[in-house]
Amino acid sequence: MDFTKVRGTRDFLPEDEIPRQRIIDIIRETYEEFGFSPLETPALETAEVLLAKSESIRDEIYLFKDKAGREIGLRFDHTVPLARVVAENPQLPLPFRRYAIGKVWRYDRPQSGRYREFTQADIDIVGSKDVLADFEVVWAGTTALKRIGVPPFEVLYNSRRLIDAWGEGVGLTGRSLVEFVRTVDKWFKIEEEGVREELKSKGLEGYLEGFKELFVDVSELPEDTEPLRRAKEELIRFTEYLEEAKIPARFDPRMVRGLDYYTGIVFETYVRERLNWGSIGSGGRYDELIRLLSGREVPATGYSIGVDRLFSLLKEEGIIESRKTVTKIYVAPVGDVSTRYLLEVVELLRSSKIPSEYDVMGRKLRKQLEYADSLGIPVVLVVGSKEEAEKTVRLKDMRSGEEKEVKLSELVEELERLL
Amino acid sequence: MDFTKVRGTRDFLPEDEIPRQRIIDIIRETYEEFGFSPLETPALETAEVLLAKSESIRDEIYLFKDKAGREIGLRFDHTVPLARVVAENPQLPLPFRRYAIGKVWRYDRPQSGRYREFTQADIDIVGSKDVLADFEVVWAGTTALKRIGVPPFEVLYNSRRLIDAWGEGVGLTGRSLVEFVRTVDKWFKIEEEGVREELKSKGLEGYLEGFKELFVDVSELPEDTEPLRRAKEELIRFTEYLEEAKIPARFDPRMVRGLDYYTGIVFETYVRERLNWGSIGSGGRYDELIRLLSGREVPATGYSIGVDRLFSLLKEEGIIESRKTVTKIYVAPVGDVSTRYLLEVVELLRSSKIPSEYDVMGRKLRKQLEYADSLGIPVVLVVGSKEEAEKTVRLKDMRSGEEKEVKLSELVEELERLL
Repeated sequence: MDFTKVRGTRDFLPEDEIPRQRIIDIIRETYEEFGFSPLETPALETAEVLLAKSESIRDEIYLFKDKAGREIGLRFDHTVPLARVVAENPQLPLPFRRYAIGKVWRYDRPQSGRYREFTQADIDIVGSKDVLADFEVVWAGTTALKRIGVPPFEVLYNSRRLIDAWGEGVGLTGRSLVEFVRTVDKWFKIEEEGVREELKSKGLEGYLEGFKELFVDVSELPEDTEPLRRAKEELIRFTEYLEEAKIPARFDPRMVRGLDYYTGIVFETYVRERLNWGSIGSGGRYDELIRLLSGREVPATGYSIGVDRLFSLLKEEGIIESRKTVTKIYVAPVGDVSTRYLLEVVELLRSSKIPSEYDVMGRKLRKQLEYADSLGIPVVLVVGSKEEAEKTVRLKDMRSGEEKEVKLSELVEELERLL
Repeated sequence: MDFTKVRGTRDFLPEDEIPRQRIIDIIRETYEEFGFSPLETPALETAEVLLAKSESIRDEIYLFKDKAGREIGLRFDHTVPLARVVAENPQLPLPFRRYAIGKVWRYDRPQSGRYREFTQADIDIVGSKDVLADFEVVWAGTTALKRIGVPPFEVLYNSRRLIDAWGEGVGLTGRSLVEFVRTVDKWFKIEEEGVREELKSKGLEGYLEGFKELFVDVSELPEDTEPLRRAKEELIRFTEYLEEAKIPARFDPRMVRGLDYYTGIVFETYVRERLNWGSIGSGGRYDELIRLLSGREVPATGYSIGVDRLFSLLKEEGIIESRKTVTKIYVAPVGDVSTRYLLEVVELLRSSKIPSEYDVMGRKLRKQLEYADSLGIPVVLVVGSKEEAEKTVRLKDMRSGEEKEVKLSELVEELERLL
């Protein structure tokens, strides 16, 4: 029998999970300081909910029949479940500011850095149509990234409203606009020449030069029509807010993010010196999705961090430190010390919130020290019958090799100095 | 279209998720202080792994075919994935002390208090066959329960080894012993009369009186055979450790926990005045499971807390407090205060780690106060152009209704006093 993990999934052993958990903690703390509250939804959703926005994603998600023959599946993002919760809970006060950190599943072809099960950390504001809400989620998301220690980054932003208004002005609408935008979205990958080629094959090349007139500062954008004026005004305010919060950011009309989902401001976040990382945090405004599930007009906007991808990237760059264990102190019983004294020492440490463990294998001291060393535990306390009689421990600093006797009554203070 | 959640699943809205998350945090902190490190495994496992121990659970778990026709499913506990990880990672230093807090799925009939998707918080020590390890996981688990504020509880414990040794002594082995134990396991539900009836129907009634001779203090247990002596010695040591750590506990041979899984000490935890809650934390020694997946002899023991069930029970009892939001401060812009000043005030709070939000809806003050009130936010800071000019805020304590002007330079100190 071959007992392995499922293709496209991975384990996080403690040496990875400890720093990964630290990243999640920072995100969570930041989101909470920004006044976002946690919402927990199930991993399982009905097929109706999962496919509400689009039947076309059927092949990209996990769907199956339960034993009663109902089609259910695993969530592929946190946004659709949020929309379902808002639909089921019309009593929720608006704006509803929630975060969700948890796994999502996609049936992608597994490839380097792509997994079928991964963790996303989302914030959303439901109920506000103001661009201040778009700014707020970007502020929260990028503050989390900064606190995690992500290298200098920049937010690229655009407005779906602007693209629509521009398209309308030049007679590019509906299916043609979607096709145009789908090609433009590849700009950073295939560059202008590639975009031109692809547009030519779609018979849309003629719109390219006009589109490039949007490559200006937001204050220079056209305002000949009411929709253009409105899009420009939003982009100007969004830009001002970003400047006030000192978030490095740049308007770029080539960054569009799948047009069928978003309805307003959209954004992606890139590390300046690591454009090859791709976007590490992204999102935008989706004012239509919740109506699909609830029948009510409920605007919404959100920002999402791909936690596992970010973790892998930071690890590859050596930006985060691995530790094999949370344990700071290993207590090593030797000779005929009583279990009572062993447990007394251990309890003293734990009640002082110092992560500690002790031998549960009946090993000789040498084996115990090897174990502590293999896990990188910084301090070992040896307790034998002599230490028990004197109410002391023999403290061994595994980093320096130094040893000394320490009274139990002074132990916590001594360790707090050392660690 | 009916957009609802999947049968047997539930959402935790912020008012539940905030205290539930607090419970998870306490468990995690406790497990880490006890020197257990986090291990994260996928929700998805292959059918081979999920069914390795027993094909018979097939009907009780979520299994389905992926798009390549492979049978995969959702984990039903954290123990089987742990065994798979140990099998796949022979390099892990032993003992491997890990915790896992996450969802598991079972295809139970949904009934009051039973869900198909729920969270378990497990600790396990892999690699030690010593009863000190059994004690250690109980110590960690019950310490977490105490810190959560669970009412006075008691650990019931028994030894699978004792039951086997006793059965061997009286000629009750194999299938008959399993059947005997399965009936005895219902003692607390159907009482002695029910047990006697059921044993009679199985033709095993003759063993009942002999079994009742085990209803004694561990020091009084029989020791006529080597297996009995060994089981007794372990139970005596386990009892001593529990006493040294002051964990309220009682040996009870009627508590057996599905014989086909466990191989040594087993335990369940009951709240004294709430026996109807059932066990709130349980586990035991399983020395065979990892060999099934790895071919190596690797003993192991663990303790598991059912987080969602515990949360529901504590909530029903009014032991935990609900809060609708994490936000402590709501900043209300009025009149023509600049967004710059609004954001300056908000940033001051957030950089001082005070969870805060502000209006993103363009609402009048009255609506803003209603919103803050509906979420139970304790303090509102009103900022208008007068406050902006004077670098102050108007602080409104929503609990007392008191208001006062506070200088920005003194704001954080003032709020820390108030909250």
